[in-house]
Amino acid sequence: MAEVHSVRRARLRERCAASGAAAALVTRPANVRYLTGTSPAGGALLVGPGERDTLVHLRPPPDGEPTPADLRDLVLPSPDGDAAVAAADLAASLHADGLAVEENHLTVARHRALRSVADGMRLADLGGAVEQLRLVKDDQEIASLRIAAEISDQALGELLESILVGRTERHLALELERRLVDHGADGPAFPTCVGTGPHSGAPRHAPTDRRVEEGDFLTVRLGACYRGYRCEVGRTFVIGTAPAAWQIELYDLVFAAQRAGREALAPGVACRDVDRATRQPLTSAGHTEALAPWTGHGVGLEIDEDPQLSPGAMGKLDACVPVTVEPGVHLPGRGGVRIDDTLVVRPAADGGPELLTITTKELLAL
Amino acid sequence: MAEVHSVRRARLRERCAASGAAAALVTRPANVRYLTGTSPAGGALLVGPGERDTLVHLRPPPDGEPTPADLRDLVLPSPDGDAAVAAADLAASLHADGLAVEENHLTVARHRALRSVADGMRLADLGGAVEQLRLVKDDQEIASLRIAAEISDQALGELLESILVGRTERHLALELERRLVDHGADGPAFPTCVGTGPHSGAPRHAPTDRRVEEGDFLTVRLGACYRGYRCEVGRTFVIGTAPAAWQIELYDLVFAAQRAGREALAPGVACRDVDRATRQPLTSAGHTEALAPWTGHGVGLEIDEDPQLSPGAMGKLDACVPVTVEPGVHLPGRGGVRIDDTLVVRPAADGGPELLTITTKELLAL
Repeated sequence: MAEVHSVRRARLRERCAASGAAAALVTRPANVRYLTGTSPAGGALLVGPGERDTLVHLRPPPDGEPTPADLRDLVLPSPDGDAAVAAADLAASLHADGLAVEENHLTVARHRALRSVADGMRLADLGGAVEQLRLVKDDQEIASLRIAAEISDQALGELLESILVGRTERHLALELERRLVDHGADGPAFPTCVGTGPHSGAPRHAPTDRRVEEGDFLTVRLGACYRGYRCEVGRTFVIGTAPAAWQIELYDLVFAAQRAGREALAPGVACRDVDRATRQPLTSAGHTEALAPWTGHGVGLEIDEDPQLSPGAMGKLDACVPVTVEPGVHLPGRGGVRIDDTLVVRPAADGGPELLTITTKELLAL
Repeated sequence: MAEVHSVRRARLRERCAASGAAAALVTRPANVRYLTGTSPAGGALLVGPGERDTLVHLRPPPDGEPTPADLRDLVLPSPDGDAAVAAADLAASLHADGLAVEENHLTVARHRALRSVADGMRLADLGGAVEQLRLVKDDQEIASLRIAAEISDQALGELLESILVGRTERHLALELERRLVDHGADGPAFPTCVGTGPHSGAPRHAPTDRRVEEGDFLTVRLGACYRGYRCEVGRTFVIGTAPAAWQIELYDLVFAAQRAGREALAPGVACRDVDRATRQPLTSAGHTEALAPWTGHGVGLEIDEDPQLSPGAMGKLDACVPVTVEPGVHLPGRGGVRIDDTLVVRPAADGGPELLTITTKELLAL
């Protein structure tokens, strides 16, 4: 584990100490990766007690009421850890000042198995403590996101130079994912979304065997994962030479909404105010039913993480928080428009929000 | 929801009634899909009370100690359900005879949120009740697995006809996944594993940028997902004209182990005995350190489901249970061999185990 991870774990240790827990068991994979740089399947991280951190593997909890002989029934050796030491540490935490666990991730069965090995101990809730630490990104993290965005733009740009009419959504999606990897991505950041004709503009659409036709709107949403960091870019195009009047009108509207959202990004601005800025042009034009419950969200080690940009969101933006701004309108049966960028929040003195995904947002006719 | 799903839900309802719960909240995605044919992200299924079943969406539980005003803070409308009805049903279950939840899947935070809306109600554990129902597959499920296997064999067969030397593991894996989709798969059943040279034969290997070289072992493990059903096939090849003596010897050994495992499959046989049959030739030859903790597992809506074929496994095989038999030996620094088939357990009177993945297991020199 590198220096940066050790600093992050020290910050988590302070949070635990403040809440009275001697140690924390981190199970959410993105959180384990954030704190250690690695996230083996089934791996968990025990932070503390004291200065010690141990990577452990958790066994599947038994069905029903468990009575494990000792903690070694719950904790497996990890490649670079010692199960006996981990079990002893875990037992010490449980019996001493308590162990904080991620109740938002840990299952009821595993929680019960932990409780069963130490009567009368204290299991506290770590809540979203690690997620909170992950909100503001450091230079290294933003550098990885920048490369992820560059790869995504490259893959999208290449697709636009190829023949699209007659190809299916599924094949376009697969080709984009191959291009992401060709350009150095670990893999796609999320399942690539390609929607054409009546599927265009839908917020969540799994690619089908529908083929691209003349006159279609074509919405593409993709993103690279680079060194674990995930970004997204989404664009809508028109197939053929001349967009219809309704297509131009709808595109201009969503473009205006997306620009308003981007321009609203600044440190100290409430997340719900960014959402309102993005949403307002669309609702004013009467598109209320057609809107998704959010207009953007944080990105990082997960493709959808805090902060949420939605009407009910709490909290304010900070500098160095990467978010998406991704309004869209989908008209059932007709299709629609979605425009999606990844940006990093920056103060005006630093030039305002940094746009990571730079593919043009002109309405291209392909 | 089709007739088959309604029959499955009726069976689950009987299990609930037997354990005294008025209703069950099913949250594990594969279980929701098994009972309804669909599994929207964040979707859950409320089975009961009475004859009623409702698809619901669960809101993310609040951080810390929640005090929701009512159940509508937890349950969102689903596309084809009514949130108010679902909330009312949920409340009725909670206040009446209790609600069974999947403690192996439900998080502690969500469990607490459910409890907080109804003081004094009974939250029971559904355990692995749906997983148990899923063990033995019906004709339709096996037909889907057969097609998934056929697609996997096709993709693998095409790869073998192409030039391999000089290509990277990552590109071979991507090409295989594209071919799966070309032949009609929903997508890959799991991340395709390609390991060459020192990476060959490893039980879990993420493809790297290493290129295939003359004299390498090349291990490929892939599978199609078809209508939700997932299978796997794994083969090891030699690159070049003449395998080395150690390669032939190791291949013959793993082949013998895999055949012993396949031949051990029969209704009524203990899962651990199948594991022992597969493992014994390898341990006799002194490969104890190099072995994975399992030699096979069930497949279906998940790529790794019950039964487990491992030394500690409980239970016996039934007819119409699809499993993998996948022994392998990996020698650190040198590589190894892995051979992996998907089969359906059948009684001897029906011709014994049905091999779904029919790609040759001869040692091919490519």
